Amino acid sequence: MKIKIACAQIEIIAGNPQLNTQTALNAIAEAKRQSIDVLLLPELGIPGYLLGDLWEQPAFLQDCANFGEKIIAASQGICVVFGNIATDPAKVNEDGRIRKYNAAFTVQNGKVIQGPLPYPFIIKTSLPDYREFDDSRYFHSLVKLQPELKPYKTMEDLLQPLKIMVRGEEIRLGVMICEDGWTENYHFNVPKILQKNGAQILCNISCSPFTLNKNHKRDKVFSAQVRSCGIPLLYCNNIGIQNNGKNVFTYDGCSCIYDAKGHLVANSNRFEPDLLLCEFDTATGKVTSSSEPKAALSETEEIYAALYYGAKKFLAQMHIAKMTIGISGGIDSAVTAAFYINVLGPENVLLVNMPSRYNSQITKNLAQTMAKALGTNYTIMPIQNFVDQTIEQITTTPIYNYTQNSDFYLKLTSLAKENIQARDRGARIIAGLSSAWGGAFSCNSNKTELTVGYATFYGDIAGCLALIGDLWKHQVYALGRYLNEEVYKRPVIAEDVFKITPSAELSSAQTVGTGGDPLLYPYHDYLFKAFVEKWHKVSPEEILLWYKENTLEANLGCQPGLIEQLFATPAAFIDDLEHWWELFCGFAVAKRIQAPPILSITKRSYGYDHRESQLLPYFSQKYLALKKELLQ
Amino acid sequence: MKIKIACAQIEIIAGNPQLNTQTALNAIAEAKRQSIDVLLLPELGIPGYLLGDLWEQPAFLQDCANFGEKIIAASQGICVVFGNIATDPAKVNEDGRIRKYNAAFTVQNGKVIQGPLPYPFIIKTSLPDYREFDDSRYFHSLVKLQPELKPYKTMEDLLQPLKIMVRGEEIRLGVMICEDGWTENYHFNVPKILQKNGAQILCNISCSPFTLNKNHKRDKVFSAQVRSCGIPLLYCNNIGIQNNGKNVFTYDGCSCIYDAKGHLVANSNRFEPDLLLCEFDTATGKVTSSSEPKAALSETEEIYAALYYGAKKFLAQMHIAKMTIGISGGIDSAVTAAFYINVLGPENVLLVNMPSRYNSQITKNLAQTMAKALGTNYTIMPIQNFVDQTIEQITTTPIYNYTQNSDFYLKLTSLAKENIQARDRGARIIAGLSSAWGGAFSCNSNKTELTVGYATFYGDIAGCLALIGDLWKHQVYALGRYLNEEVYKRPVIAEDVFKITPSAELSSAQTVGTGGDPLLYPYHDYLFKAFVEKWHKVSPEEILLWYKENTLEANLGCQPGLIEQLFATPAAFIDDLEHWWELFCGFAVAKRIQAPPILSITKRSYGYDHRESQLLPYFSQKYLALKKELLQ
Repeated sequence: MKIKIACAQIEIIAGNPQLNTQTALNAIAEAKRQSIDVLLLPELGIPGYLLGDLWEQPAFLQDCANFGEKIIAASQGICVVFGNIATDPAKVNEDGRIRKYNAAFTVQNGKVIQGPLPYPFIIKTSLPDYREFDDSRYFHSLVKLQPELKPYKTMEDLLQPLKIMVRGEEIRLGVMICEDGWTENYHFNVPKILQKNGAQILCNISCSPFTLNKNHKRDKVFSAQVRSCGIPLLYCNNIGIQNNGKNVFTYDGCSCIYDAKGHLVANSNRFEPDLLLCEFDTATGKVTSSSEPKAALSETEEIYAALYYGAKKFLAQMHIAKMTIGISGGIDSAVTAAFYINVLGPENVLLVNMPSRYNSQITKNLAQTMAKALGTNYTIMPIQNFVDQTIEQITTTPIYNYTQNSDFYLKLTSLAKENIQARDRGARIIAGLSSAWGGAFSCNSNKTELTVGYATFYGDIAGCLALIGDLWKHQVYALGRYLNEEVYKRPVIAEDVFKITPSAELSSAQTVGTGGDPLLYPYHDYLFKAFVEKWHKVSPEEILLWYKENTLEANLGCQPGLIEQLFATPAAFIDDLEHWWELFCGFAVAKRIQAPPILSITKRSYGYDHRESQLLPYFSQKYLALKKELLQ
Repeated sequence: MKIKIACAQIEIIAGNPQLNTQTALNAIAEAKRQSIDVLLLPELGIPGYLLGDLWEQPAFLQDCANFGEKIIAASQGICVVFGNIATDPAKVNEDGRIRKYNAAFTVQNGKVIQGPLPYPFIIKTSLPDYREFDDSRYFHSLVKLQPELKPYKTMEDLLQPLKIMVRGEEIRLGVMICEDGWTENYHFNVPKILQKNGAQILCNISCSPFTLNKNHKRDKVFSAQVRSCGIPLLYCNNIGIQNNGKNVFTYDGCSCIYDAKGHLVANSNRFEPDLLLCEFDTATGKVTSSSEPKAALSETEEIYAALYYGAKKFLAQMHIAKMTIGISGGIDSAVTAAFYINVLGPENVLLVNMPSRYNSQITKNLAQTMAKALGTNYTIMPIQNFVDQTIEQITTTPIYNYTQNSDFYLKLTSLAKENIQARDRGARIIAGLSSAWGGAFSCNSNKTELTVGYATFYGDIAGCLALIGDLWKHQVYALGRYLNEEVYKRPVIAEDVFKITPSAELSSAQTVGTGGDPLLYPYHDYLFKAFVEKWHKVSPEEILLWYKENTLEANLGCQPGLIEQLFATPAAFIDDLEHWWELFCGFAVAKRIQAPPILSITKRSYGYDHRESQLLPYFSQKYLALKKELLQ
């Protein structure tokens, strides 16, 4: 018999069970119209996933249970697999709070399909506790439940397919939840156990955020899994955005269907609602679909798609309809400005150029040229007069020492004066202007700067969202090119912006035309990326070893010959390495703690994804020995 | 036979294994001088505990293993139980990174004492994943290891006491790690299993931060545990501070010893290094100590002790020797100023009063009076001129609309003008002044304000540390009294500061003498505390139910009759509740995301302890029904 089985790729709003239930009910109604037999809905599709400690609120949990009942009631004539939070008031979690399971309910004709558990749902087995995930903080896993059960049952006893009847025929669904399908490092291989126990088709309901290059990885893992099990797999993921405070994640959906040989049969468009349908032949185990798998995107296309969707949804959720952006004439603010104008429309964006005496005519002209090209709102608010007055007030106001009963005066270093400029721009003008203009203001910091804190507290690390805070400098340039060539199809970002040497223009030594940032682009992009994004964190020990072995460029993924060109001696290389490592582990951490939320797209974004304590920078014993050797 | 067994309550510096190893070696040397047979050292005493994702760095892990070898080598003639991170390069954690165990090594005469595990250490069984703890993110528990082991062994097989020889006699130590002793909500009762398996004495090595009133709770839990097991317990905890970025925690130590009947025999002073010693009679199971248990402190004494220790250690770790503090004449800045002057000395603190036209003569005088009483450095930097100029610049600079090719002008609301004042103080003066003075500047926000975001982004929510950010307003007052009466023993905080109505003095309606904060002290303290600090989170549903049942004051812990006095009608009560709930769940979250680290002392502090997503404020279905009922 052929049955129709589908993934409802719906948008989930974290913390809004009422709306999510309505979205799910609409999807069920549509599925019924299309005579679908089995409909999958995403993991935790009623509550949402990234709720922070809202999971600790009993009133919210009770509401989710009540809304879940509405889904069950709506399952007349259809089998629905949906994710919800499930509680057991008779038990507690290990933290003493109400027992909570990340659960999948399989329901049909108004009733739940009972499996081997003493609950009307199945429970997530593999709980991710890496990156932004804190599953063990909130959910009790099947692995933790197993030793509590009496009489004793093995995990194999508990991981059973669920039996549903479709037009008189029994179908055995291997239902699992998200991470249960990422079997690489978990002791219990959930899909394999389900298949051994008789599952005819694997149904993975997920709530899995977009990550650059993750779809490729998922395809590899799932395809191998399916080949090993020999039965088809449906993967149902949601769209929308969710955040954990420090990070805003996008959910691309990309629900997909694999046949029993591990071939991708069909997949959903990214960031769009979809009902992804296939026919499953219960006799042969074959799945067929009328659609074709979609082509993969380039890295910059992926980045653009995720940032566009994430920014648009985030601003809408926060009721931010207007944006104020400081525009310096440099690449970061130019890309940010062009991006937001594309999202919000030129009439809703206000660009402000805030020159001091150190800003070159080149960049001032570039800022104005771009505002004009973008057809947006533009103003110039000079800061020099205010900066001078602030310096004067701080250095000429007497300070009274009540112990010695005498006055004294303070001095400002040139770095302190640079920071005064940055704060005058961010906290005085942009923040004030944005409250007059309405909406919010943008943080234009990129990941390279955030890595080493090359930014000023309450100056440029400020704003409602760091749009490009998860992009390395070279990715910012690439995004700028993409905006010109593919989005606007005209050079809204002036060509010179790509050509000038990046410079903060905060002192006479550091002005476009005279001197640039202390960062060496793109070498430091790749060095910092190794510090942050490698799964096995790279420290100066590995860097120095690779340097010594002449494999550094290959290991970092940057262009051969670069190191020799940049650093004449091992001493110069080591100085640079230690300088940036100390900033990365030191003062930059303090800055990131108070930084705005980041629109997160890579496999490691600052914030709650890459967690940090304020510690002293650490150099390992092996590093110190290697350094000694190289400096001899 | 009587053996000498002791807890080394040492200071641990997170991320400094070299220094921690030296501290441990010193403690071992001292223990040998005192002829101690068994010495306990704290959990994760080599690496430290709150390291963030430094746990992912293989070079660091390798160093910890190497330093652990030095402890083992130093165990000639003594048995040492110490905590360290242990790895198994042949396995991975569930995240695919190197397998890591939170381990206790029991070593004697240069050799490890082998237990039933295939490792030379025991493994933490119960991993906390609540509050600031993320154990499952980093460590593989014994519970997770158990199903991996071949041949099959039960948890009871694996939780065995370790057998050491002391002067020819075998002693069976029941070694466990921190949370293993907090048995309330975990399936496996580690101390009970150890005792059943023959342990003669329980040895709990911990790294457990100070929490207000926690020592009392621990005493209850441990005492009951010991009574149930019928064998003595030693609890060894460290001192020092550790942080996770958003929160700075103090470790009070308070190591302690219980006899077999659950009586506290001896304990260490809080926040001091100690070698807490007892004699254990192996024949009778009795433990005796020459010292006496210390008396408990009052709440304010505890708060003062933790904040003093925490601030002192944090500033030292960050190399902050000087502090700039904005002083308004109100209680928060007065307490903060008096506190830091006590920590750093009056010569290292600079107080700055920054009046606008809305600051009353009363508070200006109070600020100066206190600076004088504290004998510190003081200056007055008026802001009105700058605020006026900023308002003028924002409202009179033309903005050019490049679509319509015309100029327009913006207006500022009175709230926007208030925020301009706050940012002028925080980001222009205090930040600039502090860079001239050296050191850092203080964030004076309290927990009541942080709860609802009654503070300005980049204005008063700024600084290196929120010293009183985990204190409710009434606790700030109590701390002020304590500073006057017990610390300074003279009224350094002027009496009028306790008496004036708190006011931000940012508008003419809101000036001391004319009008105060919109917050109702102390009612909102208690209301907000229920939102945040109750283990089962309280939402408007419970609040309204208690209001209806007339049990609200009793449930919140505030004074009877208060509600009736403050709110004439249910409608007024509900308006107030919804207003603050919406701020708490809404804009205040955005502010806390960018707030400075908090010196955390309660059982729930903002930051990484109380985790939050930016969501829309949620009102449950039951709340909405109750509200309807009450408003009819």
